[in-house]
Amino acid sequence: MNFKEELSYKTERIEASLARFLPPEEGYQKTVVQAMNYSVTAGGKRLRPMLMEESASLFCDEKEVKALPFFMAALEMIHTYSLVHDDLPSMDNDEYRRGRKTTHVVYGEGMAVLAGDGLLNYAFETASAAFAEAASVEDYRRTASALRILGRKAGIYGMIGGQCADLKAETDSGLITEEALLFIHEHKTAALIQAAMMIGAVLAGAGQADVDKLEKCAYDIGIAFQIQDDILDVTGSQEVLGKPIGSDEKNHKLTYVAMHGLEQAKKDTARISDEAAGILESFPRRNLFLEELVRQLIYREK
Amino acid sequence: MNFKEELSYKTERIEASLARFLPPEEGYQKTVVQAMNYSVTAGGKRLRPMLMEESASLFCDEKEVKALPFFMAALEMIHTYSLVHDDLPSMDNDEYRRGRKTTHVVYGEGMAVLAGDGLLNYAFETASAAFAEAASVEDYRRTASALRILGRKAGIYGMIGGQCADLKAETDSGLITEEALLFIHEHKTAALIQAAMMIGAVLAGAGQADVDKLEKCAYDIGIAFQIQDDILDVTGSQEVLGKPIGSDEKNHKLTYVAMHGLEQAKKDTARISDEAAGILESFPRRNLFLEELVRQLIYREK
Repeated sequence: MNFKEELSYKTERIEASLARFLPPEEGYQKTVVQAMNYSVTAGGKRLRPMLMEESASLFCDEKEVKALPFFMAALEMIHTYSLVHDDLPSMDNDEYRRGRKTTHVVYGEGMAVLAGDGLLNYAFETASAAFAEAASVEDYRRTASALRILGRKAGIYGMIGGQCADLKAETDSGLITEEALLFIHEHKTAALIQAAMMIGAVLAGAGQADVDKLEKCAYDIGIAFQIQDDILDVTGSQEVLGKPIGSDEKNHKLTYVAMHGLEQAKKDTARISDEAAGILESFPRRNLFLEELVRQLIYREK
Repeated sequence: MNFKEELSYKTERIEASLARFLPPEEGYQKTVVQAMNYSVTAGGKRLRPMLMEESASLFCDEKEVKALPFFMAALEMIHTYSLVHDDLPSMDNDEYRRGRKTTHVVYGEGMAVLAGDGLLNYAFETASAAFAEAASVEDYRRTASALRILGRKAGIYGMIGGQCADLKAETDSGLITEEALLFIHEHKTAALIQAAMMIGAVLAGAGQADVDKLEKCAYDIGIAFQIQDDILDVTGSQEVLGKPIGSDEKNHKLTYVAMHGLEQAKKDTARISDEAAGILESFPRRNLFLEELVRQLIYREK
């Protein structure tokens, strides 16, 4: 299989696994469950569960890690709830995502708040259900450690912290600094990628030093991904991107490109990307699929 | 100490314990943390953590249960986030709660959504931190079991399920039935009381049969509490209640009193309350404070 075939095969397997964790649409809670499932099944690259599984395979045969599918589904639910709440009228007020009407447009704003809450809560229910697979203190220890990483990277010291800074930056010009921009990128984008790679490693039995290396690698991937986002907004064509180019400049949004210029931004993306690749190559078990996935993720054209 | 003194002493201890779990208001996430803490420190009876602690003491000296303070704080955070999101303009649109401006009025709607998300997430972070206290497989097993109860009773099969039905009932007259009303009361109100009493028992080492008994007892408490709410809306004085009486009838809200009449509602409250008391009295270790707390909770005048 070439990379593209492997990517599509793995994505389909993740879709099937994820579907098994979704709650049935029945009872008096039917509507909120429908809204939750509508959001989760709206597609997407399933990047976070994939990075989790591939990171686990750096340390052992990932199929033997029984807690892994629970955490893969949980992380995707957390990613999805963040989109549902981000799209709300009181936040970004988006009516479409990936060509589909957003959750609050279809189910109403109150139900979209509940659906996001439901997904976040169900994510922790799903991750907690992994304890049923534990057979030894070591199993319990790994699952508890994965759960703590999930919580921290999703919360105020992770994604929610980044969303807070992003929301504040809209009205507080004191937050338009490079430090604040990197904080937002690190927390809003990199944190869940860190959760993915660290949890994969922890569940597969990696030691603390290796988990730390993957935390840094995931940070690099998140930051490079965001700088590339800024670059594409300047250099991309509207046709390929599927959204208007130059929108950042028009919205007076602080970007890495605006701060450092296009050439420097490209150089920095390459440097950070090389750093991430170097970390992945340093593990005794190489994962060539993961290495290519990270490369394609950063050097994408849309 | 009489009951009132003991209640006030215990409430203060819970307040102090809860305060130690609140995150510091600093960094780029400062605003969302301020909004979270504003909501948690708005007061309230701290009923759920108290019921948790008192239920634990039915089975052992509750001071020896190291995971207990983590779960007490976590449950109160979940209760608080549900109020923050319930008060949102897209939900109940309340501007005041307990005489204080609601979170979205003070911090803006977007930040209130984030603060609720932050509290829900932080609740699970706090509960997960209890695993650090585990020293044996049995400790891990109890903490994991408590975590699963917390997730289930807070989510679509608990509180969120009740909120969904409640929101739907506003526009769907097919949901104005006794079955639907009991579903809403059970899930919106009783579920977190069940979480409190069941988690207290599980962490204190209770067996499944005793946990089941407390689940039933907490169900009774939640339902009796809600029927009393309906009764007070008819018989209470506006002065004591602090809100207009007869508001349910004016809002064409389905209530237990409207369905069964005042006399039957009073009889049923007494019957359900006696049932709850009977369960509490059946445990070898009596807890007279808990028994009185439950009585006062149901037969309150506001």
